[in-house]
Amino acid sequence: MLTKPAITQADIHELLAHRWSPRALDGEKAVSHAQVLSLLEAARWAPSCFGAEPWRFIMCERQQNEAAWQQAFSCLAEANQVWAKNAPVLLLAIALNEFTLNGNPNRWAQYDTGAAVENICLQAVALGLVAHQMGGFDADKAKAAFNLPDNITAMAMVAVGYQASPDSLGEELKQREIAERKRLPLTELCFDGQWQKPIQTA
Amino acid sequence: MLTKPAITQADIHELLAHRWSPRALDGEKAVSHAQVLSLLEAARWAPSCFGAEPWRFIMCERQQNEAAWQQAFSCLAEANQVWAKNAPVLLLAIALNEFTLNGNPNRWAQYDTGAAVENICLQAVALGLVAHQMGGFDADKAKAAFNLPDNITAMAMVAVGYQASPDSLGEELKQREIAERKRLPLTELCFDGQWQKPIQTA
Repeated sequence: MLTKPAITQADIHELLAHRWSPRALDGEKAVSHAQVLSLLEAARWAPSCFGAEPWRFIMCERQQNEAAWQQAFSCLAEANQVWAKNAPVLLLAIALNEFTLNGNPNRWAQYDTGAAVENICLQAVALGLVAHQMGGFDADKAKAAFNLPDNITAMAMVAVGYQASPDSLGEELKQREIAERKRLPLTELCFDGQWQKPIQTA
Repeated sequence: MLTKPAITQADIHELLAHRWSPRALDGEKAVSHAQVLSLLEAARWAPSCFGAEPWRFIMCERQQNEAAWQQAFSCLAEANQVWAKNAPVLLLAIALNEFTLNGNPNRWAQYDTGAAVENICLQAVALGLVAHQMGGFDADKAKAAFNLPDNITAMAMVAVGYQASPDSLGEELKQREIAERKRLPLTELCFDGQWQKPIQTA
């Protein structure tokens, strides 16, 4: 299996270093319901502002609910359908726009939902699975397909499955799959006590 | 040291289970610059839509830059200042509202920034540190204090430090510190292929 641990400037925990977003998934290897519950349990324990837990998920397991899976799949951008067709599970991640407690706008809803889905991706690593988030999907179509209420925002579709060989992809996606992972240097992301003021990196 | 592992309905990785948000911090125990770099490195390797990496951080280390730390501290809500006064490091997490590539609005900027900060919180666990996010701060004041540009959103202040005894807190915060962690049941967070349709939890 192709692993692509992060090429770090400082040590990080291996669970974080080994998370990445492969596209080559094994369409023949099922993900169990118990595994999906473990992923969602990881999301459940993410932190949230005022403990609002503003994340919700629509679980679409192909083996258990083919119709729901097809609905989710039909919302994906074509460029994602090409590879996500092999994902036995698609999860839709949703942010609640308002605090359920008082109906006030929750400006951290999307931010907190991002944290919860990162937990899903990391728990997938722990289970030997892949969780690959996609922004490329039709959010309005998803809202209609899953009867979502108005006061939510559909944030991401997450493809879950077992990794397959990069050779199972077309040539262009294969090259992206095996390419080195890249990030901006820390000095462009972090500043010392003021915007744009350089940090010391050693 | 008080640990409060998540009381889970399904197994999750211990790094995820052991992350929580203590308020009792040790004001005498410094966090090294190398440790802060490790936290930021963890953020750096989070996933982001189109690889935009829309997160930025202002690092305020009390030992190295007291003035910056005081600026950050002055932005906190009083209820947070009570305990965050003992945090040797305060980090401001920022989302870039637009893709740097083309200036288009990035609707995943806050979501992705939430994922990056979750990585910080988890890396803190790995280092034996605490990272506690706060939504309770004056975002406009922070924008002015750190000369932030207009096209960003200040999302959270993160207190980083070593954990201290709950006894170091006032009585009310002490009770919150030692209280059992709670989450909504999975059945209220996750639905089976359609909004509000119950999932099987076993």
